[in-house]
Amino acid sequence: MNRPFTFINSAMSADGKISTKERKQVRISGDIDFDRMDELRASSDAIMVGIGTVLADDPSLTVKSRYRRDTRKNKGLDEDPVRIIVDSKARTPLNADIFKKGTGMRIVAVSSSAPKEKVDALSKKATIITAGDEKVDLVLLMGQLSSMGIQRLMVEGGATLNWGLLSNGLVDEVFSFIGNIFIGGNSSPTLVDGEGFLKGDFLPLELISSETIEEGVLLKWKVLNK
Amino acid sequence: MNRPFTFINSAMSADGKISTKERKQVRISGDIDFDRMDELRASSDAIMVGIGTVLADDPSLTVKSRYRRDTRKNKGLDEDPVRIIVDSKARTPLNADIFKKGTGMRIVAVSSSAPKEKVDALSKKATIITAGDEKVDLVLLMGQLSSMGIQRLMVEGGATLNWGLLSNGLVDEVFSFIGNIFIGGNSSPTLVDGEGFLKGDFLPLELISSETIEEGVLLKWKVLNK
Ligand SMILES: NC(=O)c1ccc[n+]([C@@H]2O[C@H](COP(=O)([O-])OP(=O)(O)OC[C@H]3O[C@@H](n4cnc5c(N)ncnc54)[C@H](OP(=O)(O)O)[C@@H]3O)[C@@H](O)[C@H]2O)c1
Ligand SMILES: NC(=O)c1ccc[n+]([C@@H]2O[C@H](COP(=O)([O-])OP(=O)(O)OC[C@H]3O[C@@H](n4cnc5c(N)ncnc54)[C@H](OP(=O)(O)O)[C@@H]3O)[C@@H](O)[C@H]2O)c1
Repeated sequence: MNRPFTFINSAMSADGKISTKERKQVRISGDIDFDRMDELRASSDAIMVGIGTVLADDPSLTVKSRYRRDTRKNKGLDEDPVRIIVDSKARTPLNADIFKKGTGMRIVAVSSSAPKEKVDALSKKATIITAGDEKVDLVLLMGQLSSMGIQRLMVEGGATLNWGLLSNGLVDEVFSFIGNIFIGGNSSPTLVDGEGFLKGDFLPLELISSETIEEGVLLKWKVLNK
Repeated sequence: MNRPFTFINSAMSADGKISTKERKQVRISGDIDFDRMDELRASSDAIMVGIGTVLADDPSLTVKSRYRRDTRKNKGLDEDPVRIIVDSKARTPLNADIFKKGTGMRIVAVSSSAPKEKVDALSKKATIITAGDEKVDLVLLMGQLSSMGIQRLMVEGGATLNWGLLSNGLVDEVFSFIGNIFIGGNSSPTLVDGEGFLKGDFLPLELISSETIEEGVLLKWKVLNK
């Protein structure tokens, strides 16, 4: 399958939560981890999030360090990687920070069920990729991103998009910072939500590294896709 | 507050799940972690689980190693620690493995809303402690356990009991083994479920140790109760 090398970067609480039950954004990691994330962003061709994360957090997904922005520019790249929203129904707000902040290409991936007028409006802000009928077909989307030259893709959540990608065998590595708090809650988003695997069918991982950073632990997993 | 030194021991997937959405028991850790758990059991005065875990997994909670059983016996202790089920409505099956296997005292903690005939039947299998009106009042229960001489209490889940204890400030330490699988699922039980903390009110932890064991990582957290 033709697709970018894809990794998820996430910060979770010690009980696997990536935000609260109210889906409020939480700062789980500290400055060192934040800087590590910025480096990952700067070294990627594109960054992807789900529409749930855009609606909850309105992230800009830009590279923050001036030095890293300049380095990208000197290589002839845009200062920010391509920023991609997975958004079947074209619900992305036209004033989202992804559009307002930073430079470079934005992509909204929609399905053919997205309302035409919403897609038209978004097409003034972003390149539209249509893939799939109801939900975005992530396999098709990855193929398209690959043929556009995106070779290294960073995924920044959330819980449902992570599931969609992992369950389709589209992820190569996962970085998860585990922070020193419990969030709890049977409906709080976790690192991987969605439908869930059944017993005997779990997605196997290989631990690449484990490192204590600040008050928590950074794990790097390789995904052992079939 | 008079209560036992209390720690949770748990095994979770890399995304924080302690079983599948069908609540099927999952072997997340390997033999080394299992042996570590057995040692923790043998060194505790009592082991506690929630009724959800009894109904889902029917664990016996016995000490498995012959050597450890003998060591306890030579100290004049029962070969197994006291085994405690938190069970407001007295739903514990009379043929649960906790009653059938092992030696020593069993306690079923119920609330005053438990049906009398069920409590009467269980009282032939276990010591009954009544605490609380609807749910078991865990603070009261801990006080009673303490006055019975239980000084070191191991909690083996599940998700909802962990929440009940943590949110009431009743836990001192948490061991969590993080295994090399993703389970996923927005309804799969996680290390801490229940209601969940709100933003700004998370339970703070301190990382005591992080160790790679077999294919995963064992974290030990100290709970920073107020
Ligand atoms: N701590 C962290 O590292 C971190 C990082 C990111 C996010 N978060 C948190 O995660 C939460 C958001 O997570 P979320 O699960 O609600 O949303 P999400 O994963 O960001 O977005 C999920 C949405 O993407 C759309 N989608 C379209 N096609 C899909 C496909 N094939 N597979 C999966 N999703 C598809 C679906 O909405 P449509 O059907 O409308 O298209 C789906 O509901 C927020 O609370 C945020 O704060 C935390
Ligand atoms: N991987 C692991 O380490 C591990 C360990 C243990 C369990 N598990 C898994 O965890 C799952 C079970 O978890 P669970 O959340 O369903 O059940 P649970 O935590 O074992 O039991 C929860 C139940 O305890 C009772 N309870 C009474 N008073 C309570 C109080 N004050 N606070 C909290 N609970 C109280 C409630 O039922 P009543 O109202 O009826 O009393 C509650 O539903 C199973 O799938 C099991 O396989 C995994």
